[in-house]
Amino acid sequence: MKAVILLSGGLDSSTVLYRAKAEGLDCYTLSFDYQQRHRQELESAIATAKAANATEHQIINFDLRLWGGSALTDQNIDLPAHRSLDEMSEQIPVTYVPARNTIFLSFALAYAEAISAQQVHIGVNQLDYSGYPDCRPDYIQAMGEVFRLGTKQGREGQPIEIVSPLINLTKVEIIELGNQLGVPWQKTWSCYSDGGGQSPPIACGECDSCQLRLAAFAKLGLQDPLPYRSTQVKN
Amino acid sequence: MKAVILLSGGLDSSTVLYRAKAEGLDCYTLSFDYQQRHRQELESAIATAKAANATEHQIINFDLRLWGGSALTDQNIDLPAHRSLDEMSEQIPVTYVPARNTIFLSFALAYAEAISAQQVHIGVNQLDYSGYPDCRPDYIQAMGEVFRLGTKQGREGQPIEIVSPLINLTKVEIIELGNQLGVPWQKTWSCYSDGGGQSPPIACGECDSCQLRLAAFAKLGLQDPLPYRSTQVKN
Repeated sequence: MKAVILLSGGLDSSTVLYRAKAEGLDCYTLSFDYQQRHRQELESAIATAKAANATEHQIINFDLRLWGGSALTDQNIDLPAHRSLDEMSEQIPVTYVPARNTIFLSFALAYAEAISAQQVHIGVNQLDYSGYPDCRPDYIQAMGEVFRLGTKQGREGQPIEIVSPLINLTKVEIIELGNQLGVPWQKTWSCYSDGGGQSPPIACGECDSCQLRLAAFAKLGLQDPLPYRSTQVKN
Repeated sequence: MKAVILLSGGLDSSTVLYRAKAEGLDCYTLSFDYQQRHRQELESAIATAKAANATEHQIINFDLRLWGGSALTDQNIDLPAHRSLDEMSEQIPVTYVPARNTIFLSFALAYAEAISAQQVHIGVNQLDYSGYPDCRPDYIQAMGEVFRLGTKQGREGQPIEIVSPLINLTKVEIIELGNQLGVPWQKTWSCYSDGGGQSPPIACGECDSCQLRLAAFAKLGLQDPLPYRSTQVKN
């Protein structure tokens, strides 16, 4: 069975890909070059798709700097640094990109319909949905209705299903799952910065995304194989 | 009040723009260069936005030829020609682009959220929804839920509203409305072909979109100001 896997190149979506692979699905991975600050993730997505033997990897290009509105697409907005988990979940963060998951899921739907895939997999999880509006279960359910009503397949009684297997997992549980599945963490990229322009890139260790990742590896007593500028976790 | 207007440059969306303008809205128009066959419509969108004094006109670029699946993005699929209205509505046509309106509405939502607009206007209508799955009222309603749940504004109780003022109108009624509003039909472009590479471009008169438009003008006893290669309408 064909499935489109939204693959950012991060820890979560890479785990989703390996999980789909373990299920025996025929995986078509999809990434987006939206001129994000952390373009390094695109290289990670390519490497991870290759490592997982994805059938096809597509990259859609568009420019979300056009209207900005997020620290991830506007270099003039500083990335939050060294925030604790509690601080992160206080309000919707400046790294929120307006309607990003809606755009991503829309393209995934188009891709799925064009290749007659039956599922779209997305790696949203509860840590994200504490902050981001478009990562919560009710939102995913609403998109499911759009998938059903907005396509030829759906109208003909064969709706493309949205699968979000990480939605109730913590970052710790995702890493445990990824370890079981053999996700190559060293190929993934979670940092919101661009890796300092170095080769190999070095994660900042300070942004929300690095902090979440580092805290979870630390909690498991494991070493994150990525190079970091700083690995101090704020409690 | 700010509103994002999805503007393809065709007859319907141009009427939606003029209607929004007549309502006194501050109009931000949005077009898509998705490497469609009928790229001429992008020039029409620019001209119409200018004529209507839109505050800002944005064009988002991406390439839907990547996976094809439609006569509008794949030159190897012939455009249907000289079909009657009955023939057109028999099944979802080959000019259907998978998930196109979902992609368009997603970007409109992102744009609206980034500029704090309160509405997104789209020119879907019942002639479209006889054939296209993503033009029907239940689909628009499902997208409305996504608008509500998938954004910061929506979560904070200020959802961006989808306005589809043409949804129950026929093409004849849309032209009557456009005439009252002073829509410059000569600047619009409905034809699915590229205008024959001529300057000024010449509409084919044969594709479904030309046939619908020509039939409606003829029914009203009006002359469509666009140049056509053929103006014969199949009954």
